[in-house]
Order: sequence, then structure tokens, then C-alpha cells
Amino acid sequence: MAQLRAFEAARDTGRDIPEIVCFEKQDDWGGQWNFSWRTGSDGNGEPVHSSMYRNLWSNGPKEALEFAEYTFDEHFGRPISSYPPRAVLWDYINGRVEHSDVKKYVRFNTSVRWVQFDEETQKFSVTVEDLVAHTTETSEFDHVIVGSGHFSYPNVPEFDGIETFTGSLQHAHDFRGAEAFADKDVLLIGASYSAEDIGVQAYKMGARSVTLSYRTKPMGFDWPEGMQEVPLVDRFDGSTVHFSDGTSRDFDAVVLCTGYLHHYPFLPSDLALDSPNCLYPDTLYRGVVSEANNKLFYLGAQDQWFTFNMFDAQAWFVRDVILGEVPLPTPEAQRRHIDAWLERFAELNGPADEIRFQADYIRDLIELTDYPMFDLDEVVRIFLEWKHDKQENILGYRDEVYPSVMTGTMAVVHHTPWIAELDDSLERYLSDPEPDELDGLVNAEGAQTK
Amino acid sequence: MAQLRAFEAARDTGRDIPEIVCFEKQDDWGGQWNFSWRTGSDGNGEPVHSSMYRNLWSNGPKEALEFAEYTFDEHFGRPISSYPPRAVLWDYINGRVEHSDVKKYVRFNTSVRWVQFDEETQKFSVTVEDLVAHTTETSEFDHVIVGSGHFSYPNVPEFDGIETFTGSLQHAHDFRGAEAFADKDVLLIGASYSAEDIGVQAYKMGARSVTLSYRTKPMGFDWPEGMQEVPLVDRFDGSTVHFSDGTSRDFDAVVLCTGYLHHYPFLPSDLALDSPNCLYPDTLYRGVVSEANNKLFYLGAQDQWFTFNMFDAQAWFVRDVILGEVPLPTPEAQRRHIDAWLERFAELNGPADEIRFQADYIRDLIELTDYPMFDLDEVVRIFLEWKHDKQENILGYRDEVYPSVMTGTMAVVHHTPWIAELDDSLERYLSDPEPDELDGLVNAEGAQTK
Repeated sequence: MAQLRAFEAARDTGRDIPEIVCFEKQDDWGGQWNFSWRTGSDGNGEPVHSSMYRNLWSNGPKEALEFAEYTFDEHFGRPISSYPPRAVLWDYINGRVEHSDVKKYVRFNTSVRWVQFDEETQKFSVTVEDLVAHTTETSEFDHVIVGSGHFSYPNVPEFDGIETFTGSLQHAHDFRGAEAFADKDVLLIGASYSAEDIGVQAYKMGARSVTLSYRTKPMGFDWPEGMQEVPLVDRFDGSTVHFSDGTSRDFDAVVLCTGYLHHYPFLPSDLALDSPNCLYPDTLYRGVVSEANNKLFYLGAQDQWFTFNMFDAQAWFVRDVILGEVPLPTPEAQRRHIDAWLERFAELNGPADEIRFQADYIRDLIELTDYPMFDLDEVVRIFLEWKHDKQENILGYRDEVYPSVMTGTMAVVHHTPWIAELDDSLERYLSDPEPDELDGLVNAEGAQTK
Repeated sequence: MAQLRAFEAARDTGRDIPEIVCFEKQDDWGGQWNFSWRTGSDGNGEPVHSSMYRNLWSNGPKEALEFAEYTFDEHFGRPISSYPPRAVLWDYINGRVEHSDVKKYVRFNTSVRWVQFDEETQKFSVTVEDLVAHTTETSEFDHVIVGSGHFSYPNVPEFDGIETFTGSLQHAHDFRGAEAFADKDVLLIGASYSAEDIGVQAYKMGARSVTLSYRTKPMGFDWPEGMQEVPLVDRFDGSTVHFSDGTSRDFDAVVLCTGYLHHYPFLPSDLALDSPNCLYPDTLYRGVVSEANNKLFYLGAQDQWFTFNMFDAQAWFVRDVILGEVPLPTPEAQRRHIDAWLERFAELNGPADEIRFQADYIRDLIELTDYPMFDLDEVVRIFLEWKHDKQENILGYRDEVYPSVMTGTMAVVHHTPWIAELDDSLERYLSDPEPDELDGLVNAEGAQTK
């Protein structure tokens, strides 16, 4: 969506843009934000893309992801809170592209089956399956931009005896809601965002206990009564899980919050990005241009503090490379550039460093294009405040508000604290409930915010 | 595995066989019978193939699926019961090919990405990904045999409001065991083998209630107290499910037993079999030769009463076509042959007809090859007895025994009735427990057999 908008923005300034086709296997756009109740494979037998669950609210402030060229103020016409539910964020990213004339470029329900690069013609042949018409087509392209993300194919390690576990067992990718965890003992394996967020969601929905198992180190939040962190799972034995510290416990449900794979089944291995989830994947010049083939690009292939506005910075840069407005340096110079960033990356020490690193990366990209520069230092400040707020109150941080970096507008405190809100719909979010209705809700749920 | 064995059997009789490569994305063979605790995608990001659950026992008598050239007697060296658990059946099919010298043909952990047919060279180019080495390779083949089955990609229809369902929700493909259904109200949508079998498994594991929802007509078994059939789901609303007869009920768990798709993401649409699950897919001459391209074959692409021995009959036939020992008729004659079978197929009236139809199909194939002919009428008789036994006692039919069609050996009554056996392992199955141990088990579980 960022790439389509980038090209459209160039056209708006009178530039010629190339012929564009966007293949999307889902029947709507939005990627991760295009929620599906389905798990495993979709109605067409294709792997389900989105890892969203029904009740997900942004786990970072919207002020850190705001588009510089399409603000929340412009979309909603009034201030909203800083941590909107997924449907509200989808509405925002959808709104930007609906306002453009780009949907015509998208072939929905069309899965890319195989991509090959022909050294002679210097073109890609892209073979796709129309999942509705059941027809296979191959077309030639000068450039290919991979925008399929890297949070769709679960990384699922083996654990001794896991095949004997009798409770509910799923990867975070297949988690769709925590209501069924009420009064249950729930184990989350992992110590990153999936574990943190599904953990508090399970707590919110009334889990009897929430246990978080870490490999390297605990997240260390001030967990409420009933939530605790333990070391890594050693083995499963029926419903019992043994941990590496010698303790054991019975669980009703396990969620594997063990991350995702960079997986591109439509690309040959010499073109497919092979990388762990990190802030600077090797082999990508400026984080987007494939070193193996400079006509191949990846958007959002790195781990992400910044998201939507980083994708924009990348898309604007890729666009200008394709338009020939930004020349690419020699392969050697590309390698030196990557190495220099990898060196910086290797020296990072903790989240604050990482956030500043990614801000610098984005600043560099934006300076090469006409994407509106924004106050990246202010976004860093907001990220650090967010980190601080989470440390203070992992259950209440979503009730905090921040000012827009783009417009200065201060977000408004939402009508209902996150912990008490059981209706995650856009309609409910944008509604203006009576105060007594809210009192009832908060009391009924015994919500606590800081 | 049948195809590998078929070629090996030809070599055993002194015939020259072609170069063979078998690509298998899993790390072991056995297909459906290669159980995995994983759901969704596997450790390599590939769709999980097997739809088996931990506790599955054969739902048809082993006497109906026995290989004519490798008997249960030969494998186990003593009579066993008629409905073995999955590990026992895997052991049997694995044993046959381990006794052959065919494992060398299999490239495990290798996923077929894309197959193309070159009209000029009349060869297939097959592009595969080595999932361990992360290398892509393309090779040329004269013939391609698709043996990936058609019970791996779930067919999952949409239901109004299903995205609001708050309980556990999965397709039968992802069902791995019913222990978590104890004391739960469980809904199974579907009225075929998945619904029937997961239903009785849920009952066995102590579900509070088991509701089976049919689209066309109920299965009509003599269900025990706590199991009932209802018409099709009209809509979901949170944990409540409304049925088309106006009734509604709350459920803790839903299993979609809604069948599977013929899905071949590695084949272009002009080669991919496009068929509903039926006894005689159109476009396959003798049920195996692709009409679109006579060098392309499908094994087991039809709905199945017969299984292992039918796959053998097909594999022996395909082998002899490839070896040039069985000539293929003209395209027109192939079409007439298919049409004649489709006509017969259209006139079938109920299971007995269908079973005889498939027996006739197999007989026809075997007569063209040197696969050992067996008494197909006797298998039909066993199938009909099995149908009758299920009508008599859906919870007890797995305790019945039948004689081998191949050896005449009568199966032995298993040491523990199915309903009382909670250990589904090969070791337990082949063990010889003390009688008092068995009494305890049966009493503890309150098992009832006819």
C-alpha cells in the first residue's frame, strides 16, 4: 500500500510512472491489518497471511507510526486516543489509499506462484494463480518489489514431548482471541511482543494464571497477580510442562510466541532474503535493495520499531530508484554501505539505541526523496516514553496519550480504559458513550489504570 | 510409497526401470500417516501435510486396505485386531518399503515449488527447494506422478458471524486430540468421516455434549446419550450458534469437518486436477492419467473406500504405462472410457453401490498389470459388514474382527476395547497386558461395547 501510494504521489507531481501490477492473494488489502478469523489455510487453500487477533489494539503509540503525508487528523477529523484497536488502524491505512486512485493496480485473490529472473532479457517472469478463475498466467516485469512482510510464517521450534501435550496448542500466528482462556492456566513461550501482548490479553479475559517462559531473559514488567515469568520449557509430558529450573506445572493452553520466519516460497533461493528478524538484514542495500539483484526490492523486511512511516520512507526510495531519480552505487559501494550499517548495528546496546538507529536509517532514506521529513527525534522521544509507560504499568499503558509529531494535535484519553473495554470495534471506539455507561463498565470489570 | 514399491517390484522381476526421484517435503515418508503435532505450517514454513490426530485408530477394517503383496501376517508375524491405531498402520506401510531398496529415491525435506511442461522438449521442468540447504534446483523429467493426496488443504466455508465465535475453533485438519474437550460442549460441522470420528473421539474423551451439524442429511447412527445431530449452522453470535431449524446453543469448541480441497499450488492450472472429492474425477483416464497431459499422473485423487491396495493397483498401472508395457489409447478413446465410467458413477445409489463401483475400478486396473489379484468381492463384503457394524454400535465397531482376504487369517479381538483404551501407542497395542490390568481399565472408563 505504501508503494502504490508512493507511485501515485509521483504521478501527482507530474512525473511519469511505470506500469504497475500488485498481486495480492487476499480479497482485500491491509496485509496484517486485514483480519481473518481463519487459521492455517484460507478459503483458497493458501496460507493465512494475517497474525492479528480479534481484540488487538496497537501495542505502540499511533504517534510513532503516523504517515507524514496523511495524518490521523486528516483521516478522522478529530483527535482520537493513542492506542487504537486494529479495525481503527485498518481504517486509517485503508483511508489513505482509498483517497488515491491506486486500487486499480491490485489484482486481488491472486497468488504469486513463482518468480524467475532471466539474465538475458534482464526481466523477471512472474507466474501467478488467479484463485477465483483458476487460471495461471506468467508476465514479464522489469522490477519486483516484495511487500509480503515477515510476520506470516511461524517459527515453531521442537520441544521434547510436545506431541503429548493434551491442551490447546497454537502459535501466536493462529491466536484469534483469549476469551476461551477464562479460568484457564495459560503458558506463553517467548519473551517478545507476542508473548507480552497475548499475555495481558489472556489476563484481561480472565485467565486463571498466565505464565511466560523466556529463553534468554525475562521481560521484567511489573506483572499483576496471576502473571509470572519462568525460564525456558525443558519438556512436555501430557498436560504437564517442565521448565529448565526444575519446576513444573499443568497447563490448559499453550501459545508459542516464538516469532516468525523470513519465508518466500515464490522466490528461488538466490533471490529470497535469508535473514533472522533483525534491524538490518544483511544483503539489503539501504534495507530494501537486494544485493543479489538490484531490480528486486524488499519493503519492511527488517525488525520494526517504526512501521507505517518507515514503510513509506522505503517505498518512496524504491520508487525513485525505479524511476531512475536515485542512482544506485556500484556493488562494492553498496557492500561498504551495508557493512558500515551492520557495524553500527552490532554496537547497539538496548532498545533506546535500536530506536535511534532505526530513526537514523529512516532519516537517511527520506533525505534522498521528496517524502515529507518529520521530527524523528520527537518520535524517538515518544517511543522512549512508551517504553517507560509500559514499565510503569503494563496493563495501563494503552490509556496514555501523546502529541502528533505531524500536526501537534494531542491525542485524547479514550472513553474507556483498555482493560475495561470488551468491544474492540471501530463503531464502539468512535462512539461517545454516556458517562454512567462507562462507570458501569469499569466497575464491572474491576479495571485498574495507573 | 506405492509407486516406489511398484517400480521396485518391476526391477525384482528383471525389468529395467527408469531413473526415479521422489520429492517429499516432510522429513519422513508415510504422508497422512506421518503424524505431526504441528498445525498450520511446519518447521520450514511449509503447509502441514497430515490431518492425523494423536489418538486416531483406523476407521475401516485393515482387511479392506491390506496390500496384496505385503500382508499384515508378513509384517507383524502374528494376527492383530482389525482396527489398529495410526502408529501401527504407519509401521505396516513403512515396513513394506523399508524391506525394499527404495528410500534412496526419496529427497526428504524437499518441497516442489513449480512444475512446467515444455511442449518442445516434451519434458517437465520441476523446480524444488531443499528446505535444509536452502537451495533451489530445477530438473527435467519425462513423467510426473502427483502423490500428494487431497486431504491436506482444508475446505473451510464461511458462516455468518463465525469471526465472533469466542471458543476454540479449528478445522479437522488441525485437530490433534480431544482431551481438551472433556466437560465441554463441542460442535462438529459436517456429516462425513471426520465429523463421525472426531465426534466419537470427543465422546470417548468425556465431552459434556457432542453436537453434529449436517447440511444435507444426518449420519443417523445410534448415538449414545450426549451426542445428537442437528441441521446446518445458520449463524454464529459469540459463543452461541444458531441452527437452520431455529434452535440455538452455546458451545465451547467447534471443529469444522467440512472436507478438503484438491489443491496443487506447484502446478499450473492447465495441469492441476480441478475436481470435487468424488469416486471418479473427470479428466483422469482410468482414474490416474491426466487427460490434459498423458505424461502426468495422479494417485489416490478420488474419494476412497479402498485405500492402500487401490493405490497399489494405480501405481502398478502407472508404472506399466511409463514402462511402455500398457499402451494408452487415443485421446478420443480415453474420453469415451472416462465418460462410460462417469455415466456408471452418476447412477450409483448409496454406499453399497459405491463400494462395488470402486472394486470394479480396481479389478480393471489390476487385470492390466502383474499386481496380485485378490478377492475384491470379499473386500466388498467386509466393507458392508463394517457399515452394518457401525449402524449397530458406533462406539463398538472397532472391536469387531474380520478375516484377511489375502491370507485367510482371522483377526484377533484386541486386548482392550477401543472405548476403554487411552494409550494409542504401538507398544501398548502390541503388548500383552495382564487380565486384571484390563479389567481395571475397562471399569475405570465405564466402557460399553456391544
